[in-house]
Amino acid sequence: MKEKDFIKIITDTLNSSYIGDDCALLEDLGITVTQDSLVEDVHFSRKFATPYQLGYKSVMVNISDICASGAEPKYLTIALSLPDDVDGSFIKDFYKGAKDAVLGAKIVGGDITGADKIYISVTAIGVTKNRNISSRSHAKTGQKIVIAGEHGSSGLGLKILSGEMYPELSNFEKEEFIKAHLMPQAKSEFSEKISTSQKGKYAMMDTSDGLADALSAISEASSVLMEIDFQKIPHNKSLEIIPNYSDMILYGGEDYGIIATVDNADGLTVIGEVKEGLGVKINYDNFSETLIRKDVDEKIYKHFKE
Amino acid sequence: MKEKDFIKIITDTLNSSYIGDDCALLEDLGITVTQDSLVEDVHFSRKFATPYQLGYKSVMVNISDICASGAEPKYLTIALSLPDDVDGSFIKDFYKGAKDAVLGAKIVGGDITGADKIYISVTAIGVTKNRNISSRSHAKTGQKIVIAGEHGSSGLGLKILSGEMYPELSNFEKEEFIKAHLMPQAKSEFSEKISTSQKGKYAMMDTSDGLADALSAISEASSVLMEIDFQKIPHNKSLEIIPNYSDMILYGGEDYGIIATVDNADGLTVIGEVKEGLGVKINYDNFSETLIRKDVDEKIYKHFKE
Repeated sequence: MKEKDFIKIITDTLNSSYIGDDCALLEDLGITVTQDSLVEDVHFSRKFATPYQLGYKSVMVNISDICASGAEPKYLTIALSLPDDVDGSFIKDFYKGAKDAVLGAKIVGGDITGADKIYISVTAIGVTKNRNISSRSHAKTGQKIVIAGEHGSSGLGLKILSGEMYPELSNFEKEEFIKAHLMPQAKSEFSEKISTSQKGKYAMMDTSDGLADALSAISEASSVLMEIDFQKIPHNKSLEIIPNYSDMILYGGEDYGIIATVDNADGLTVIGEVKEGLGVKINYDNFSETLIRKDVDEKIYKHFKE
Repeated sequence: MKEKDFIKIITDTLNSSYIGDDCALLEDLGITVTQDSLVEDVHFSRKFATPYQLGYKSVMVNISDICASGAEPKYLTIALSLPDDVDGSFIKDFYKGAKDAVLGAKIVGGDITGADKIYISVTAIGVTKNRNISSRSHAKTGQKIVIAGEHGSSGLGLKILSGEMYPELSNFEKEEFIKAHLMPQAKSEFSEKISTSQKGKYAMMDTSDGLADALSAISEASSVLMEIDFQKIPHNKSLEIIPNYSDMILYGGEDYGIIATVDNADGLTVIGEVKEGLGVKINYDNFSETLIRKDVDEKIYKHFKE
């Protein structure tokens, strides 16, 4: 059983209208809220990431979800569960990293407990004032698909950390990809631009689980076809040395870019258009492919979850 | 190094004025927020608690913190990290329990990931409208110390679950204590009564880490002596069969009662008074003792953390 099946059980049990986007919109309070966890040896390894980087990334991935909702990141709480071998210097460096990732928000509370492994769960609250809030179910035929952030770098960084050699790459290039994986940047300026300039409904989502996943999730929630041109996706050109680099760009994940479907794309990077239909259509130079949800899930599983 | 040392490091690193109470008060948003985690084999065991009970308790302990702030519980998010052997029926029962514990609040989001053990982190948001919000630093000399909830039952329930025999107790009594441990009740009516009736500043805190711990934390944060009469503490009379039952009442923890220091104690259960000085003074029938923070920490550690 997979995460998506579990979420269906939860939605059915709660009979809740709130669950569907990464953030819940609480209109009466003027906020959006999200909570994401990072688990040692599932999402990170102490072998690869310093305590500072862990703190930084744990906060940034939640800030990214708030940005994808269109709200302004404002407050965070952090729950840490830690094994006995973690000491005060870990905590200090972790919180230094967390503090450097807040993009103007404040860390206001949390919890510390014991555990066998490191568990980090962060909640972020964003303010909706003067912002038009997105939903992945708000894409409409005729809207342009716009993007922020380079894609593929984080996935390659993880492969390098995991021991794949890539003799084609220089050490400098490798360091860049590793940094993209360990210290992602939420696209707060793009989010602010979109949520303060779009008049009508629009979809927006971060690409934490991969660009193709985000396109597919919007397609499914909005019942539209998301058609993009592969060559328009911003990416680090050094990626092209790698065999099947297009899979890295589409399915690698953890780039924490953002995609949106907008009526007004002035000054934004357009990679495609929302059309009638269902699924994700990707145009390459000489051919195109159309993926349904199942294809995307299988690709992600095959390339990155084995 | 202990939790309190870690919290000092965090407060120093963040240089934050928010950290100190279980809930953070976000005045601009009109909310209080708290986040608490429960970790398998640290806070609970699948041998003792059903999935329904786990969901129930995970939510209730966070609702209790919101109640202790004086706010009205309104929204919750739940992050679950689960081992491979957890299936859909676990999720369903967990969320049924969670839903039955919300006391009018709504579960609006969260996260599911993998992990080696079950890790549950819940964030709760309370609304401050028409409520006077508490702080543990707001106790004043001359205020009455009032209480809600029976104390000692949960601690004894845990000892019974852990295999201690207590032949003095009937099976019916044992079941009552076990239920107090597995399915605690947040004191929302008491919280509402206090936070809508008190005009001035007051301290309020739940007794999740033990009644003596809560008294000591308020004493420390407010620089006052908290003097109580032991015989006035509400408790299940069956507890008195147990040797050293007073330790269970004072240090057992997880009863999720609430104590408050109030100017107006009409219709409330008074157990003592706030005095000049520092520490916790407990009057028994024939003697009294005064505990400082260190004494309380040692008692909790000796009796319940070994």
